[in-house]
Amino acid sequence: MPSKRIAVILSGCGHRDGSEIHEATLTLWAIHKHRAEYQCFAPNVLQHHVLNHLTGEAMPEQRNVLIESARIARGKIKDLALFDAAAFDGLVIPGGVGAAKNLCTYAFDGANCTVNPDVEQAIIAMHKIGKPIGALCIAPVILAKVLGKVIVTAGQDAATAADISAMGGCHAPTWQGEIIVDRDNKIVTAPCYMLDSRLDQISIETDKVIEALIGLMEPSA
Amino acid sequence: MPSKRIAVILSGCGHRDGSEIHEATLTLWAIHKHRAEYQCFAPNVLQHHVLNHLTGEAMPEQRNVLIESARIARGKIKDLALFDAAAFDGLVIPGGVGAAKNLCTYAFDGANCTVNPDVEQAIIAMHKIGKPIGALCIAPVILAKVLGKVIVTAGQDAATAADISAMGGCHAPTWQGEIIVDRDNKIVTAPCYMLDSRLDQISIETDKVIEALIGLMEPSA
Repeated sequence: MPSKRIAVILSGCGHRDGSEIHEATLTLWAIHKHRAEYQCFAPNVLQHHVLNHLTGEAMPEQRNVLIESARIARGKIKDLALFDAAAFDGLVIPGGVGAAKNLCTYAFDGANCTVNPDVEQAIIAMHKIGKPIGALCIAPVILAKVLGKVIVTAGQDAATAADISAMGGCHAPTWQGEIIVDRDNKIVTAPCYMLDSRLDQISIETDKVIEALIGLMEPSA
Repeated sequence: MPSKRIAVILSGCGHRDGSEIHEATLTLWAIHKHRAEYQCFAPNVLQHHVLNHLTGEAMPEQRNVLIESARIARGKIKDLALFDAAAFDGLVIPGGVGAAKNLCTYAFDGANCTVNPDVEQAIIAMHKIGKPIGALCIAPVILAKVLGKVIVTAGQDAATAADISAMGGCHAPTWQGEIIVDRDNKIVTAPCYMLDSRLDQISIETDKVIEALIGLMEPSA
């Protein structure tokens, strides 16, 4: 039986201006743990900005989302413009504020955000052919924006829950270690660092997300 | 019983010019998994260089080791100059080429390398008071350089093994999932990405390293 292939969309490298590193790493870890394979992707665009993760202050420089994401992927990453839904069994988007600043404009525009065209196309393409999609932390807002009527979680955050409703989605609250599976839409989400979590709790969630994602896939030929 | 406190020395953010992100994250994960707490540290120095992790090419910019390491630590990081051995029960140094370029000059000078003074002091201070030290991937060369006669592993790499011998250490070969415990010196090392490993294999090694490290600590008061 061939291994399941899961595409992972990264948004930079660091939770304040890119992908949350622990969530991204523990997503890749869970994929390997479940004997599946991953291919990382990222849009080939400039980051919205670069933040000093020690002070939170903006740094006077520019960084590219694809190039910085390659740090998490150990170079094993492709331009999201090259994504082919037919080549993958599932898709996952880890969190970090980069998901809300580089993959879409949610951090600035809330429910009125726009989504990066490559990200939008990847989600629509997977959803259209019935392949499961996972999202962590703040990334579920992208699924609500693109797909509308999906059930997702953003932990316990009331403002995000209201935005998800405004985008046509349904928010299901969660605590550490819990995930939400929208079986009809094949969407799996987890709160991760939307809550004040320990790394072992993050790993429990990414483990459950990948297990659920694989459970929603068609059996291998 | 108070939680064990483990200091983690990072060397940047990305395996080619800083800390290996998976090894660092899975070290923090293993610390939390074993109900211990971590505090990250990094030297407040410029990186030797910045490499594009997609192409491997040098980028015409400068980055600070402490500031970039803060991406992995989610901001919970201190200048290694402030390290106080009395405040910790153990110390771990994840790998990545940054360990061999930013924490010491091993990547350029081999067995004749020099070690960053803050890194050297932290290792000597912990060792002197009998507290255990762990190192992953290429980082064990730093322990061999600073401490001399210790037993460490660098996987199966013959050149690194020869350098470890030249620095007065003893190299013990390992495969995926194996660790080396030098009980006399309270040194624990694992090969991690010195071998071609999957992430679940890296997690098995970091889990074993932290478990062994805690086993070598004095019982809590």
